[in-house]
Amino acid sequence: MLNKTVARNFLVITTIFLISCTTHKGETTMDTNLIFGKGNKAPGAIFTNTVWVNMLHTDEEKVFDTQVYDVVFEPAARTYWHSHPGGQILLATSGSGYYQEKGKPARKLEKGDVVAIPPEVVHWHGAAPQSEFVHIGMSTKVHEGPAAWAGPVTDEQYNEATAE
Amino acid sequence: MLNKTVARNFLVITTIFLISCTTHKGETTMDTNLIFGKGNKAPGAIFTNTVWVNMLHTDEEKVFDTQVYDVVFEPAARTYWHSHPGGQILLATSGSGYYQEKGKPARKLEKGDVVAIPPEVVHWHGAAPQSEFVHIGMSTKVHEGPAAWAGPVTDEQYNEATAE
Repeated sequence: MLNKTVARNFLVITTIFLISCTTHKGETTMDTNLIFGKGNKAPGAIFTNTVWVNMLHTDEEKVFDTQVYDVVFEPAARTYWHSHPGGQILLATSGSGYYQEKGKPARKLEKGDVVAIPPEVVHWHGAAPQSEFVHIGMSTKVHEGPAAWAGPVTDEQYNEATAE
Repeated sequence: MLNKTVARNFLVITTIFLISCTTHKGETTMDTNLIFGKGNKAPGAIFTNTVWVNMLHTDEEKVFDTQVYDVVFEPAARTYWHSHPGGQILLATSGSGYYQEKGKPARKLEKGDVVAIPPEVVHWHGAAPQSEFVHIGMSTKVHEGPAAWAGPVTDEQYNEATAE
């Protein structure tokens, strides 16, 4: 009888610890991904698959000449090909993604990577096929004008760029 | 005899789970604080207490007109009073800190907060007394010139600003 009680207690308590561990890991992962919150679903006309954009600084008053945003790409989601007349800087903060300039091999991006994209360079950025990807983006020298969009990164282009 | 074996197994296995939980939490906390790595210890002439600065984009080639850096403030560490001729944007990513403009109450900062500091506004930023604080910083319109430094935030000023 005592055996059974001890065994049952053992089962109950280890189950609680297992749930506790899982919950801690789950909460922390979510926190890491969401420093700034997901923002709004981005328009399909310039992104492929599901992307969330949180505008952190719009610079509507044109004081800083810089716009700042946080972008969450679901797996396989990416921007269309595009360029910025004033340049762009990306800071990868979570997950795995890619950056590719037209005509060059793609560069894999992980948390902590920085990409400085000079003005007029045609490129795309987005998530790896099997991983969410989060980056902060800065559009610099925005007085030069808005981004120019140049059509989707096709599945064929994306698969070739992200093949490992 | 069986009782003792079950009880001992119970003790060993719950201990393993406890250690496992603690380790997971520890690792994840460190990762969250260090998206970009700590960088270099910052000079004492413009900071009070220990601060680490990781330059993410220096813009030496003057292409983006923007410098980007990650700053880790140990508890009670802060910048001197200063201003930027081209402005500055801060993105709080971890811990608790403060931002104060000269002559105004301090604003408490937590993960996800954004501060846009217009040109020439005298201010300081740093950690809360009992918490590390990490922010990304952007110096915008750097062609306007470097920051102007105006002496330390005294312990009296800091204590008054951060009293809750």
